[in-house]
Amino acid sequence: MSGIWQWVVFFVCLVVENWVWAASLRLEVDGSRVESELKELRRFSDTAAPDVTRILYTQSDLDARDYLRRLFKEEGLVIREDAIGNIFARWPGKSADSPAIGTGSHCDAIPFSGMYDGTVGVVGALEAIRALKRSGFRPVRSIEILVFTSEEPTRFGIGCLGSRALTGVLKPLDLMKLLDVNNTSFDQARFAAGYTDKLENIELSESYYDGFIELHIEQGPELEKGGIDVGVVTAIAAPAQLEVTFKGDGGHAGALLMHLRNDALLAGAELAIETEKAALAKGTRDTVVTTGSFDIAPNTVNSVPRHAKLGIDVRDIDEQRRDSVLEIIISRAAEIATARRVEHSVRVLNKDSPADSAVELVRALEDSADQLNFSHQRMVSRAYHDSLFIAAKFPTAMLFIPCRDGISHRPDEYASEEAISKGVLALAHTLAKLSSAAPQEDEPDL
Amino acid sequence: MSGIWQWVVFFVCLVVENWVWAASLRLEVDGSRVESELKELRRFSDTAAPDVTRILYTQSDLDARDYLRRLFKEEGLVIREDAIGNIFARWPGKSADSPAIGTGSHCDAIPFSGMYDGTVGVVGALEAIRALKRSGFRPVRSIEILVFTSEEPTRFGIGCLGSRALTGVLKPLDLMKLLDVNNTSFDQARFAAGYTDKLENIELSESYYDGFIELHIEQGPELEKGGIDVGVVTAIAAPAQLEVTFKGDGGHAGALLMHLRNDALLAGAELAIETEKAALAKGTRDTVVTTGSFDIAPNTVNSVPRHAKLGIDVRDIDEQRRDSVLEIIISRAAEIATARRVEHSVRVLNKDSPADSAVELVRALEDSADQLNFSHQRMVSRAYHDSLFIAAKFPTAMLFIPCRDGISHRPDEYASEEAISKGVLALAHTLAKLSSAAPQEDEPDL
Ligand SMILES: [Mn+2]
Ligand SMILES: [Mn+2]
Ligand SMILES: [Mn+2]
Ligand SMILES: [Mn+2]
Repeated sequence: MSGIWQWVVFFVCLVVENWVWAASLRLEVDGSRVESELKELRRFSDTAAPDVTRILYTQSDLDARDYLRRLFKEEGLVIREDAIGNIFARWPGKSADSPAIGTGSHCDAIPFSGMYDGTVGVVGALEAIRALKRSGFRPVRSIEILVFTSEEPTRFGIGCLGSRALTGVLKPLDLMKLLDVNNTSFDQARFAAGYTDKLENIELSESYYDGFIELHIEQGPELEKGGIDVGVVTAIAAPAQLEVTFKGDGGHAGALLMHLRNDALLAGAELAIETEKAALAKGTRDTVVTTGSFDIAPNTVNSVPRHAKLGIDVRDIDEQRRDSVLEIIISRAAEIATARRVEHSVRVLNKDSPADSAVELVRALEDSADQLNFSHQRMVSRAYHDSLFIAAKFPTAMLFIPCRDGISHRPDEYASEEAISKGVLALAHTLAKLSSAAPQEDEPDL
Repeated sequence: MSGIWQWVVFFVCLVVENWVWAASLRLEVDGSRVESELKELRRFSDTAAPDVTRILYTQSDLDARDYLRRLFKEEGLVIREDAIGNIFARWPGKSADSPAIGTGSHCDAIPFSGMYDGTVGVVGALEAIRALKRSGFRPVRSIEILVFTSEEPTRFGIGCLGSRALTGVLKPLDLMKLLDVNNTSFDQARFAAGYTDKLENIELSESYYDGFIELHIEQGPELEKGGIDVGVVTAIAAPAQLEVTFKGDGGHAGALLMHLRNDALLAGAELAIETEKAALAKGTRDTVVTTGSFDIAPNTVNSVPRHAKLGIDVRDIDEQRRDSVLEIIISRAAEIATARRVEHSVRVLNKDSPADSAVELVRALEDSADQLNFSHQRMVSRAYHDSLFIAAKFPTAMLFIPCRDGISHRPDEYASEEAISKGVLALAHTLAKLSSAAPQEDEPDL
């Protein structure tokens, strides 16, 4: 027995060994530890508790990253960070050169938001690994936690920066064009944060992951309402974002007579009202439109506004319907600009396609839930996630847990320790299975 | 001849001497020097030229004050500053203890504005004194330049801070309640700027000024349109400012369905539209309403806005009509809040009465214009000025000069060197007359 057969037998043994492990897994999740780590993480915020504000490359963000790296290191994970601060914390498998199984989420937070969005998928992933280690499990494929940089669009106006860059949707040149509101370039910002590697090194190879699972709070009411333990996401809704600017002449609030004005704020206010009308006109609960940001200049009470900039978010699980809403908003903006004699411009910041989960991962999650006696249901994610982009390159699925009243992006966002523990358990169980799979013969690294 | 008669003869001589001086005044204004000093002043800005942004107690503001003090000192003026940074630069008269003749304006500038609003009345006042000195004139009453602190409401949300405090409209306790957007208290801010004197010492005594004249650009189109050299202001329009806040629940822009939202931004947008309607409904050009500031939180594209705060400015030369517009806006705000299920609150930040100029000063300005062969016209100021508050305590008038296209609060705000020179000449001529008047026997300081 030699050559290729030797390898085949070796891997068959590995597989059998690991299926036995997985079947006999005695996984125990330490929910109170996860809870206390989430609370510790909440402390890294630019606004006072219970609000969380953690914006890309601010001191709070860097402190949170520091804290996570410390936790990963305590578990003996192998850490690397790429040129924009995506953090990879790897538990090397016996077949360390095979494509890994990825899991993770983000740890940034929009201004005045809560402590569970994203973070549950990071700290939860770590606890999943700890539970596996405690049970004596040892993976064949490496298991890797990925903490995505800037899932939220707060600083540079575009969400899922990390996953877009990892999957080549954002190229180095695209990244270098980004500016924040203070005209700090993305490059200046990442350098100041200590990330100085070449942007060309970020993109992951096709064989980097064999599968990716993101654990996340639902950010909607369905699981809680149905008393369901976990949701298995089959598709992520398609988001689009517009930036509309209006520019008038401004002037003195006392001296400039009404009929001589071309007030940029009033143009923006009219468009905001129109965005709501455009959503409601579709007559379906699946179309949502939000004017989420609205900035005017000079923004002082005694001056007629000269500039208005609106950030508009349009989502639908139906891409065609979403695009028709976009078109309506764009034409309303033009009509308003004409009527109010202001200049205007429209930029489509992103207009991504919906993503489907990988069928085999959906099944793996459902099997784990069954084996653990957790109730589960398939669902669509209306919120945006890094998994949307990861799914375009690697088999991907998401695991949702219920959160109170479906509330998110608010300080009263809440998921119970029990809900989180069940999510972590299902995640750990699934990671065990996936990481036990034998590497394929034709896998490039073998 | 002794006792009281001695004094009477002395003062009669003084008066006659000065009337002779005033009549034979050979005043020459150095317009190009004023222009170059205004340009120098423009450099102290937080935004790049041609924009000017000079906000209370910022480094730019402190640098501008430094520059002005240097100019005043070069002329040998006696400088004092009060506890909030109102700057007084005095040319002592022969009767130095008599009430002075005041003149001046402000040097702060709203974000992204121009270089003539306020500054013309400060640098112009200095050039008026220089012209008087060059002519050999010597005043009986002291002539004092007053540079008001924070005419613009940018930092603490309330305009004419300096003049309100000088005239007791704002008491020390009112000042101490003020907070800027960063929650810096007014006291913290003035201390940081080096102003540490007691607030109780600010208010001026009733006999401090015998008259006050503010030179200012018109900030409207009338003088330019009519080809008129100077405008003599007979009344300052009555401004009022409202702060309206709406508070909803916020939520995730993807996950929160439209019918479950109570979006604070949309409530604010509706109110902004209503403020315009309320002004137009009056059917007169004298009613102007501006939603000048609009701040939302969290102000991020993927989050339903939870807070909206509007700064609304309402002006009219008719106080009753202005107040009826205020009432309409306040009731619209309540209706919108109910319809959109958001909380709301309304604060009337100020609601000042219009002020009339002192008849004798209006006549003195008109006489000077006539003697100088300048065309002139009486007019109402639609814009807000420190003179509004000074007028409540001292005889006050304003002198307007034309500015291009009536534009103000914008970087393209412009007044020609010729227009400024004529304004300074008329001001100098009037100051000469007023400062030559004999002190009254019953004046307290004699
Ligand atoms: Mn989020
Ligand atoms: Mn998230
Ligand atoms: Mn102004
Ligand atoms: Mn002014």
